[in-house]
Amino acid sequence: MSSAEEIAKAAKVAFEDSQLISSAERVAALNHIHQALQSNKTDILAANKEDLKAAQIEVDAGRMSESLLKRLDLDKGDKWDSMLQGVLNVAELPDPTGIVSYAKELDDGLELYRVSCPIGVLLVIFEARPEVVVNIAALAIKSGNSAILKGGKESNKTTQILAQSISSGLSRSSLPSSYIQAIQTRAEVSSLLALDQYIDLVIPRGSNSLVQNIQNNTRIPVMGHADGLCSVYIDESADIEKAIRVVVDSKTDYPAACNSTETLVLHESVLQSVWPAVGRALLTAQVRLLCDPASLSALQALSPPPSNLSFAEPATPEAYTTEHLNLTLSVMTLPSLSAAVRFINAHSSHHTDSIVTESQSAAATFCRGVDSAGTFVNASTRFADGFRYGFGTEVGISTGRIHARGPVGLEGLVIYKYMLRSMSKSGHIASEFGSGKKQFKHTDIVKTVPF
Amino acid sequence: MSSAEEIAKAAKVAFEDSQLISSAERVAALNHIHQALQSNKTDILAANKEDLKAAQIEVDAGRMSESLLKRLDLDKGDKWDSMLQGVLNVAELPDPTGIVSYAKELDDGLELYRVSCPIGVLLVIFEARPEVVVNIAALAIKSGNSAILKGGKESNKTTQILAQSISSGLSRSSLPSSYIQAIQTRAEVSSLLALDQYIDLVIPRGSNSLVQNIQNNTRIPVMGHADGLCSVYIDESADIEKAIRVVVDSKTDYPAACNSTETLVLHESVLQSVWPAVGRALLTAQVRLLCDPASLSALQALSPPPSNLSFAEPATPEAYTTEHLNLTLSVMTLPSLSAAVRFINAHSSHHTDSIVTESQSAAATFCRGVDSAGTFVNASTRFADGFRYGFGTEVGISTGRIHARGPVGLEGLVIYKYMLRSMSKSGHIASEFGSGKKQFKHTDIVKTVPF
Repeated sequence: MSSAEEIAKAAKVAFEDSQLISSAERVAALNHIHQALQSNKTDILAANKEDLKAAQIEVDAGRMSESLLKRLDLDKGDKWDSMLQGVLNVAELPDPTGIVSYAKELDDGLELYRVSCPIGVLLVIFEARPEVVVNIAALAIKSGNSAILKGGKESNKTTQILAQSISSGLSRSSLPSSYIQAIQTRAEVSSLLALDQYIDLVIPRGSNSLVQNIQNNTRIPVMGHADGLCSVYIDESADIEKAIRVVVDSKTDYPAACNSTETLVLHESVLQSVWPAVGRALLTAQVRLLCDPASLSALQALSPPPSNLSFAEPATPEAYTTEHLNLTLSVMTLPSLSAAVRFINAHSSHHTDSIVTESQSAAATFCRGVDSAGTFVNASTRFADGFRYGFGTEVGISTGRIHARGPVGLEGLVIYKYMLRSMSKSGHIASEFGSGKKQFKHTDIVKTVPF
Repeated sequence: MSSAEEIAKAAKVAFEDSQLISSAERVAALNHIHQALQSNKTDILAANKEDLKAAQIEVDAGRMSESLLKRLDLDKGDKWDSMLQGVLNVAELPDPTGIVSYAKELDDGLELYRVSCPIGVLLVIFEARPEVVVNIAALAIKSGNSAILKGGKESNKTTQILAQSISSGLSRSSLPSSYIQAIQTRAEVSSLLALDQYIDLVIPRGSNSLVQNIQNNTRIPVMGHADGLCSVYIDESADIEKAIRVVVDSKTDYPAACNSTETLVLHESVLQSVWPAVGRALLTAQVRLLCDPASLSALQALSPPPSNLSFAEPATPEAYTTEHLNLTLSVMTLPSLSAAVRFINAHSSHHTDSIVTESQSAAATFCRGVDSAGTFVNASTRFADGFRYGFGTEVGISTGRIHARGPVGLEGLVIYKYMLRSMSKSGHIASEFGSGKKQFKHTDIVKTVPF
């Protein structure tokens, strides 16, 4: 077994050696991986069965949750097929590299191009779901990055054989087989986090504590995917039907997702108008409501009383900083739009927040004032998703605000470099420019890749 | 005096409260700051004189370098005037916020916009030169970020009064006066580095050890500006005149700059053709050459011998990983272009590297294969600079490869948020989409700011 340093070094070498490999060859590599996975299906599912058997013992002993067990199962529903289809889908996406975002003629015959290119070596750390190995490998290959992958220990056997299939697919391509490597232990992760000379970006996908723990233990940049504490705000001018639909969907469409809503903020003027209908709809949908005094008494004063009124109860202060991830919703009444914006900025995780309003000016104030990756108007927070946004794929949803924010597509796995090309007879030198000498032109030129 | 936490919180509040302030009002604030600096000129230069006097004592005692002292002086040459002009220049740059980079109709009446916006609170740590306070304050205000600034302790008195002038300018604007704050001590920096709930980006401008020390002590993202270990590679097809001009300019135009060249890589086939002329030109320019055996004996075999031949000496291995920052150049001979690319990837700081070649294919291999922020063809590495690239300003030169790479303009101080707007009769909810239900359209729409 290789040491962490050997693994990291091999990844860096694989990355550097792959820089001249064309986009078409990277697509071919993805097709080889697809075939390798297909022909290893029996062995992969057998390894997955072993992981599942071990996990069942943990569940029976009360040491693992049933939902974690379910996420392990590669043979459930159409998971296997959609994992394989995902590789082909990523292969067909537009190449995110080689895109020119800035092109200027600095002087006659001196052309500057800013061209998108891969970041380098990615270290991706994720939890339970083993199909993420295949998903991330495809994204890394498509964007020209090499990757080191660490899955949850519950899926070690599955992850290992998936990684072997990926390597065997790579060996039939022009990419080095060390382009994608899988590691098994936390100790290896710790060692890798120290190797910033080889690893360029860490992508942890999991709990807040996983992300923070990694941020505390590395100087490598981290693109974290952590909490989603989303909210919906019902403005004084809210339409009642929109309010019901947006709030109920934001809470109940898929409560375990990070883009589900955890907090409902009410303008106090809607307590007797919109809130009763919204509250009734939520209670009918069996949502547990953790209410501030004003919203609770408004519900309790209704006649006839709402069904499931007992699902409404007083909120503790912690309710407003809790990611419930189930059919629970915290409710807060505030006197104004600006108080709502301040409250959301102080309590949300800056993921996605939505306003229900008929006022264009309130919408503008909310969308500009709320400091979140997504600010929505009359739309469910559940739309915050790379596929729904049209990226064709999703690396994750970044809770950071550097490099990539919100749902991240392939664009989040590239950076750029500046290519400067002199075509003059004697090359270009800096000392010929300056006061009393040549001046820079900075003329826009056509944005095509120079090489 | 405020605690670090109070300072950080005030910066965050100032940032959030400023989100509805228009671009025109930010420009007005810059003009107020310009006026405040102008009317405080006497006091500022008096404070600067005190810093200079204290620094002179340090220089006389051998505890500070003469060059550091020079950089402290605000009254030297046109430094004062250009500092003030810089504020007006930044004010006139295009607003980097509110730019739509992605706009799609997801469904009839459901529009998604990705809009550039400020990052949040910046913590900027820099060394000696006090005019950086004004420069960074202007960049932060223009891009809508609030900032906490820490200068070198040698310039504490100057920094403090510059910061007061900035606050007094802000107090005449609609921006909060706590929008820009200056701190004086390292202890405050340490405390601030722990406050990732308030501070969004740390920008250290200084030595490698400063940058690494900060990266080791915070989980806030760091945009580092550190070493420049640039190189020029002379390819087998190099034109002799271009080689001389590019190498001499890259080394001698401003040896103390990070974009100066520290290493010259020679294709072995140029040892008897191009290298003698380049070597002679470098020795004539009094450049000390740290040579590998092949390049050294090629020079020593020349007849007549080059002037200053004694400036050429054998290189130690460390020469190739040293940022000389003076008239010293390490020289390495290699057998091929691909060996040169590998050598540069292993030894350079991934800042800027240039090839001298007449071959389009060698240029393409070099520009794609060298993993640096700038890959140049027949042009001096000294062109790697935000002003020369046409950004109108420079935040610094980032040696990272996340978010912003290479010379960073105002674009490096913004990120984006997604604004989603439903204009349908009953709002938009996610559960209406999916297999057998509505499908997303993802049609391109005109990229204008929705609010």
